[in-house]
Amino acid sequence: MTTSEARTRLETEELQERLREIQALLAGKGTGLRATLDALHPADIAYLLEALPPEERLAVWDLVKADRDGEILVEVSEAVRESLIASMDSRELVAAAETLEADELADIAGDLPPAVIEEVVRSLSAEEREQLRAALSYAEGSVGALMDFEHVTVRDDVTLEAVTRYLRRLDELPGHTDQLFVVDRYQVLKGTLPLARLIVTDLDIDVARVTVREGLRLKPEDAASEAASAFERYDLVSAPVVDGDGRLIGRLTVNAVVDHIRARSAETQLAEGGLTKEEDVFAPVLDSFKNRWAWLAVNLVTAFIASRVIGAFEDSIVHLVALAALMPIVAGIGGNSGNQTITMIVRALALGQIQTHYWRKLLAKELGVAALNGVVWGVMLGVIAYVLYGNVALGGVLALAMLLNLELAALMGVAIPWVRWKLDRDPAVGSSVLITACTDSGGFFIFLGLATLLLI
Amino acid sequence: MTTSEARTRLETEELQERLREIQALLAGKGTGLRATLDALHPADIAYLLEALPPEERLAVWDLVKADRDGEILVEVSEAVRESLIASMDSRELVAAAETLEADELADIAGDLPPAVIEEVVRSLSAEEREQLRAALSYAEGSVGALMDFEHVTVRDDVTLEAVTRYLRRLDELPGHTDQLFVVDRYQVLKGTLPLARLIVTDLDIDVARVTVREGLRLKPEDAASEAASAFERYDLVSAPVVDGDGRLIGRLTVNAVVDHIRARSAETQLAEGGLTKEEDVFAPVLDSFKNRWAWLAVNLVTAFIASRVIGAFEDSIVHLVALAALMPIVAGIGGNSGNQTITMIVRALALGQIQTHYWRKLLAKELGVAALNGVVWGVMLGVIAYVLYGNVALGGVLALAMLLNLELAALMGVAIPWVRWKLDRDPAVGSSVLITACTDSGGFFIFLGLATLLLI
Repeated sequence: MTTSEARTRLETEELQERLREIQALLAGKGTGLRATLDALHPADIAYLLEALPPEERLAVWDLVKADRDGEILVEVSEAVRESLIASMDSRELVAAAETLEADELADIAGDLPPAVIEEVVRSLSAEEREQLRAALSYAEGSVGALMDFEHVTVRDDVTLEAVTRYLRRLDELPGHTDQLFVVDRYQVLKGTLPLARLIVTDLDIDVARVTVREGLRLKPEDAASEAASAFERYDLVSAPVVDGDGRLIGRLTVNAVVDHIRARSAETQLAEGGLTKEEDVFAPVLDSFKNRWAWLAVNLVTAFIASRVIGAFEDSIVHLVALAALMPIVAGIGGNSGNQTITMIVRALALGQIQTHYWRKLLAKELGVAALNGVVWGVMLGVIAYVLYGNVALGGVLALAMLLNLELAALMGVAIPWVRWKLDRDPAVGSSVLITACTDSGGFFIFLGLATLLLI
Repeated sequence: MTTSEARTRLETEELQERLREIQALLAGKGTGLRATLDALHPADIAYLLEALPPEERLAVWDLVKADRDGEILVEVSEAVRESLIASMDSRELVAAAETLEADELADIAGDLPPAVIEEVVRSLSAEEREQLRAALSYAEGSVGALMDFEHVTVRDDVTLEAVTRYLRRLDELPGHTDQLFVVDRYQVLKGTLPLARLIVTDLDIDVARVTVREGLRLKPEDAASEAASAFERYDLVSAPVVDGDGRLIGRLTVNAVVDHIRARSAETQLAEGGLTKEEDVFAPVLDSFKNRWAWLAVNLVTAFIASRVIGAFEDSIVHLVALAALMPIVAGIGGNSGNQTITMIVRALALGQIQTHYWRKLLAKELGVAALNGVVWGVMLGVIAYVLYGNVALGGVLALAMLLNLELAALMGVAIPWVRWKLDRDPAVGSSVLITACTDSGGFFIFLGLATLLLI
């Protein structure tokens, strides 16, 4: 990343300005565009590419200096990366990929044509090839998939003076080097030597005496989300990754952790909004359709089931048409309340706050909250229904149905994440769709069923 | 934070084990509990406190050594902090608060009784008092509210040798010191000196020659979210915060940024789930009710409006009761599709990817996707309705209503975030409730209205 070091860092506002400049230059076929781009950090070019619609995006991409292509491809989102790669030929792709470190290459390997990867692999050293193989072998969401290989190691039987001399022979330290890793001759990790400690300590002391031995050690198969919460708890900048024998194989840095946190939060947000994956804002209509149809289809099935539940009570509705107007209220409040329960539980599970034997306690609490809600809102709506339709029994049935559907929402709001957690599945995905399906069909059934029993 | 340095860092799994251990000790009134707690990092104790129900939480809290109270109060969530503070008397609170840095004190000041704050302020030095005043003066969500004051500054007219000697006189460097700040005699920031550069450079060189002048500079009134995206783009560990005259007043570190990202993503998730704020999983029923009633009330109003729309068409429903069974499908799919649009736009806005003159383009695209969805799902459902009810015209009306409600969903899915963005309000908050209100009432109106016009 040396090429980017000398470029000014911009705040978002300044970046937005730069974007407007570039658009003006694009529109006027100005000659200053290439110079403007050259002055930008690769991450900023990535940002601008994301913000431009397809034609302008490719026009800018053509002007970016070829030696920065690789870095920028690593920075952009997958949706935009695909559109950029589609515009490049094999020779350009190979040239771009060859500028990357093994762990960066692993990040974009999935989007590159196999022939390009083959050619790049041939150009790697044996060590780099092994690193690439390792990086590709770990599952998405594991520490191994996020780690890099750019650590500096020292032995513990030398003085800090010797370490300092050794470091001074390096041109620069890898990014995010806040500590050196102390290893023995078999690469077994003995601890870490923070730069801040190296700097404040007398140089004639041995490394062994200032080595920190209590630091976090990760294994490549550990879940990235657990490593991320350890980084948060302990305010870490980097942590070593060791294999089963305690040998150092790589390190995890805070920037990879931040990217992971963002990506995970985006996934949750997208799944809750009913999108399969991140979508390029300016994607063609057909691409958007593909990204959205799956959740719409699921929703269609659940809506159809709810519709059949209503269909079973058509006679009652003909008899008392107010039921048709009131039934969406019962279903709607149930869905809202169930979503509240499930959101809180999914968050608590993600933060590791729920233990096996607390589920019962949790269910009792949620049923209690639902009872309170049911009485408060049920009575209020029952009164409103009485005022509107002049029918006391109808008001009573509405209030009772509301209470029962809120209890159902609480029960399912605890049960759905509990089952997914028991099965070791992500409790967040689709939770909102599932609970809404229960409270819709359940709400219609409870309200119309009670009405049929008591009013018709 | 020196007290915590010598403690082992644990992964989540090990922490869960420790939690089970503590529960066993609590149950058996074992004597090893205090020793187990003493061996834990304050952030881990915070984690355990979050995971315990109220009585066990307070039992553990009583056993934690008093000199660590302050650190732990900073680490726990607001909901849990309130429960811990409620169990402490003024003397304990003052003692706990006095162990904190000014920026940490500012973080929990809102939860402390005014008398406690007054007493703590009296014990501060003039410099710390000024720092506390500064930290409290910046709005939540600004860089000023996240920054700390623990930076190390150097002058640029000295040699690296002199810097090294100066640093060695310090016992230790503040956490997250990846760079020193280079200032002139008026504290005006001239650049930064990365430790990694200090370590690899010959010591007889002047600071001025290796000072990095292109780094990001933040202002305390900058939005924290924009600073966070700059940290992400440039993979930063720390950045200086300067006032209007370029004088250094503090620094922002990556751990504060990570906390901010998590908090923001939690807020979005909670708001979308219909919760006002973070909720203690084991909160009393009444506290939970208070945290949830506001969104339920909003939902009740929108559900009531939808109910009145249906009420206006009761005659048509009596005439053709199939309408009652089919109407939730039109409303449901519209809501789902509108949420997809709004989720994508809210994300793109947060990432700064939408420029003023692209809104029109975006609307056109969303209307296009809605048209495609409307034709595909509309025809499918129309056919199903025909099969179920043997009424061609009913199938046609259902298909048409579906198409129109999807177009309405697309229009409002773009319009709602656009208006909030124009008004400089957070486009995420309540977006799901608003769009669902539009597509529910709109869907019922379109379907029942068309049916009344064409079928009755």
